[in-house]
Amino acid sequence: MTLNANTLLTQAPAVLNVGIDAFNPSVIANGGTLTHLQWQPPGNADPALAWKLAQLMADPRIEQANVLATQRIINARPMWEDIALRADGVWPEMKNTRLLLHAGPPVAWGQMCGPMRGAMLGAVLYEGWADTPPQAQALLEGGEIEFAQCHDFGAVGPMTGIISASMPLIQVRDATHGNLAYTNINEGIGRCLRFGANGPDVLQRLKWFEAVLAPVLKAAVRHAFDRSGGIDLKAIQSQALLMGDEVHSRNAASTSLLFMALAVPLAAVSGGKDAIPQDHIHQTLDFVAKTSQFFLNYSMVSCKAIMDAAHGIAFSSVVTAIARNGTETGLRISGMGTQWFTAKSDLPQGLYFPGFKPADSCPDIGDSAITEAAGFGGCAFAASPALTLLAGGSVIDAVRYSREMYEITVTRNPSLSLPALDFAGAPCGIDVRKVVDTGIRPVLTTGIAHKDAGVGQIGAGIVRVPMQSFVRALNAMAEQFMSAPRPAQAGRPPWGSSKVAGPHFLEKG
Amino acid sequence: MTLNANTLLTQAPAVLNVGIDAFNPSVIANGGTLTHLQWQPPGNADPALAWKLAQLMADPRIEQANVLATQRIINARPMWEDIALRADGVWPEMKNTRLLLHAGPPVAWGQMCGPMRGAMLGAVLYEGWADTPPQAQALLEGGEIEFAQCHDFGAVGPMTGIISASMPLIQVRDATHGNLAYTNINEGIGRCLRFGANGPDVLQRLKWFEAVLAPVLKAAVRHAFDRSGGIDLKAIQSQALLMGDEVHSRNAASTSLLFMALAVPLAAVSGGKDAIPQDHIHQTLDFVAKTSQFFLNYSMVSCKAIMDAAHGIAFSSVVTAIARNGTETGLRISGMGTQWFTAKSDLPQGLYFPGFKPADSCPDIGDSAITEAAGFGGCAFAASPALTLLAGGSVIDAVRYSREMYEITVTRNPSLSLPALDFAGAPCGIDVRKVVDTGIRPVLTTGIAHKDAGVGQIGAGIVRVPMQSFVRALNAMAEQFMSAPRPAQAGRPPWGSSKVAGPHFLEKG
Repeated sequence: MTLNANTLLTQAPAVLNVGIDAFNPSVIANGGTLTHLQWQPPGNADPALAWKLAQLMADPRIEQANVLATQRIINARPMWEDIALRADGVWPEMKNTRLLLHAGPPVAWGQMCGPMRGAMLGAVLYEGWADTPPQAQALLEGGEIEFAQCHDFGAVGPMTGIISASMPLIQVRDATHGNLAYTNINEGIGRCLRFGANGPDVLQRLKWFEAVLAPVLKAAVRHAFDRSGGIDLKAIQSQALLMGDEVHSRNAASTSLLFMALAVPLAAVSGGKDAIPQDHIHQTLDFVAKTSQFFLNYSMVSCKAIMDAAHGIAFSSVVTAIARNGTETGLRISGMGTQWFTAKSDLPQGLYFPGFKPADSCPDIGDSAITEAAGFGGCAFAASPALTLLAGGSVIDAVRYSREMYEITVTRNPSLSLPALDFAGAPCGIDVRKVVDTGIRPVLTTGIAHKDAGVGQIGAGIVRVPMQSFVRALNAMAEQFMSAPRPAQAGRPPWGSSKVAGPHFLEKG
Repeated sequence: MTLNANTLLTQAPAVLNVGIDAFNPSVIANGGTLTHLQWQPPGNADPALAWKLAQLMADPRIEQANVLATQRIINARPMWEDIALRADGVWPEMKNTRLLLHAGPPVAWGQMCGPMRGAMLGAVLYEGWADTPPQAQALLEGGEIEFAQCHDFGAVGPMTGIISASMPLIQVRDATHGNLAYTNINEGIGRCLRFGANGPDVLQRLKWFEAVLAPVLKAAVRHAFDRSGGIDLKAIQSQALLMGDEVHSRNAASTSLLFMALAVPLAAVSGGKDAIPQDHIHQTLDFVAKTSQFFLNYSMVSCKAIMDAAHGIAFSSVVTAIARNGTETGLRISGMGTQWFTAKSDLPQGLYFPGFKPADSCPDIGDSAITEAAGFGGCAFAASPALTLLAGGSVIDAVRYSREMYEITVTRNPSLSLPALDFAGAPCGIDVRKVVDTGIRPVLTTGIAHKDAGVGQIGAGIVRVPMQSFVRALNAMAEQFMSAPRPAQAGRPPWGSSKVAGPHFLEKG
């Protein structure tokens, strides 16, 4: 059709609108047909940021560092090798200090969400630092308890993510790069410390973990360790992607594979001298079989081991941790040390269990988004059509989320296949620059916690990581990397003395 | 474009060809563009058959019977309730007769394929009816051994499907309709009786089943039976469809779910007085964990229980069994009693293990196609993208096969969801009439056996059920049902005295 000023004025308009959607209603109101193309200028529509972005996008040091970071993600081989029976056996500072680790970036008592406070209170009671909830509350409000982030201790925790001195820990080693990672044990559904519940039933289960479950798990994994170096968690994660899990919000297949890896050695160790009581083995297997998210913590600690191996590579813009404390969502970036780049957490969107509604939701919470950093969860949503039954959306949506994530990642992980995409490798290595450039924020699959302590999970869905976290990270990278001008002549580059230089530092300019 | 005789002669042709493809090459050779629509006249292009088909397609008695048959498929609830420690305890005729059950429709010794003969020979040695292979061979050739079909004994067997007096059997009851079904135990991969292997290693494993594995399985299932009526096999099959299995050629998820259902009760029964030796429990769990197709036999016997519940409904044209003996493929039809409608088996098409080729293949073999009759396997291929890694094709093919099967089935099974089709119910109830009408033959997912006895599985792929089996079934239905003319006046219809009438007989004309 040739453009014609007469018909333009007399016929109903047919409009393709790019970018701002404010024009759309008037077109529709006047009987026109409209196609809206979502678009925004790179750099989150901020010209100064766009300029920095352009510099960082063109920096070969970042490209090279990101290749190295993603190679380390791909090559990592996290092996579950032990149960540490007490956290203070791993971290001696917990013996002398009343210290609680929590999920996400730092957060003061006054800013904590309901579930986080409830879980803190429960942990104080569990450790016997107080005898009653009011006493525990007083200690917490009085600054008598120290807090730190799980991530600073090489650990991760789901939801509130509280880890205290007496808790048993799952210990995982990346067999390729040697680093260790830790997490706590999944409590099942309903009233759990990780959702801020702190009643006697919750504390009793934690004591049962100490007395029964953890020694049984330890016996199983040590048996496996002696024979084959432990239980290969990435192999389970990779198999589970072929079996309908994205190993963040759905772990049905991975839990059953882990169960098999536990039950066979337990049948071997049962009944010998100094043996674990048979009843403890039965209780443990029964608990794992009934806890379809039991593998979640294993998936998280596996991903923590993977992403720590990719952390600390100078100039890399790969996201090595996404963590939420129920108030803020924070990022860590491979080349930016231990800084957190934070912004206010969004509310998850999804399906609610009967009797609950969006207004009941706690903002996005937990360290479990480490799974997305490693290419699972939202990145691997295409592998888990069944998750849409729980979290909403359709199979098409699940596939679309994974496709979107290719836009903001460095490469594909050949050891993690997505069946619905004809076995394409999962998106690997979220690049801060690509997020700011495209405006596409990482998708996290997540449980939805009640905003009040102790109610527990009220639904499941998805949430996006706040853009402001990426903008802050990009600004910090620009400040750090662009402040050292590139040398005009060949030779040892000026950033050779960077504080973030380490064993992974790239010598080539 | 308006038709114009001039341009028709001077321009390159653009042709839509319907049906016979013989015209196509000349169009292509002359530079034309061609779209070929696959089509053939109903009734497999046989006018006499088409006439019968038209009568049967319009018969409301068949429509009603098929609704009832598929309701029974949908409502069936197969529960694994016991292990029968010896087949001759279930079927006393095995005590007095040297009887071997085999897969598929009847077949004489002289017509048996290599694996079937090899397995028969192995079973004769296993039962101690002969001491050496030549002695066993002489008994078989001399007609000293009786053969019967598994299906006639309410049983199914994979591949050669040999069941003999001493073998332990899995016993399943359809809790809704009360009927029982049986199968043998999966031997794993490599050299197995079901592939015709018969060496000392094979027979030793069968003896180990008797002495170790079967009593352990029995202890587990009886524990579950006492508490919850057994282990719900349809629940496992249904879950497994969400986890990448089609529960015929892929059973990774279902085996792990069954493993969990076994290991928890075994941990409970272990160590008591009169207890199973702990070492036997360990051996059994280790065997199941390493046998990714362990659930196959459970899936088959579950489907046998389901399809027997749908069998014997007067006038129903629903296929209640598809079974192959390595020579012929046979069908049973709900309304046609115990008749087999047979035709020569095709060779499966798929991927071969290294060192093997299509010419090494045995024609399609085994009772496992009972899973397709019940809506799994090829009908549920869309649920199992991962199977294409083993069997060839792409994810698109997997989805296409399931879509095709909707064309030849009565309805959809709401309790069996296919995630890739946005949780549509699996195709339910293959209708003989629709197969002949559309020319679409059921797709079976299958292992490929070597044509020589004892080599074992050499690949995996798909195969179609021969059309001639359906044509024979349709002709027989026409002869039986159309010979009784429909009454001109209301009243009890003349087919009320049909021999196939039974508890499921439709009283309404």
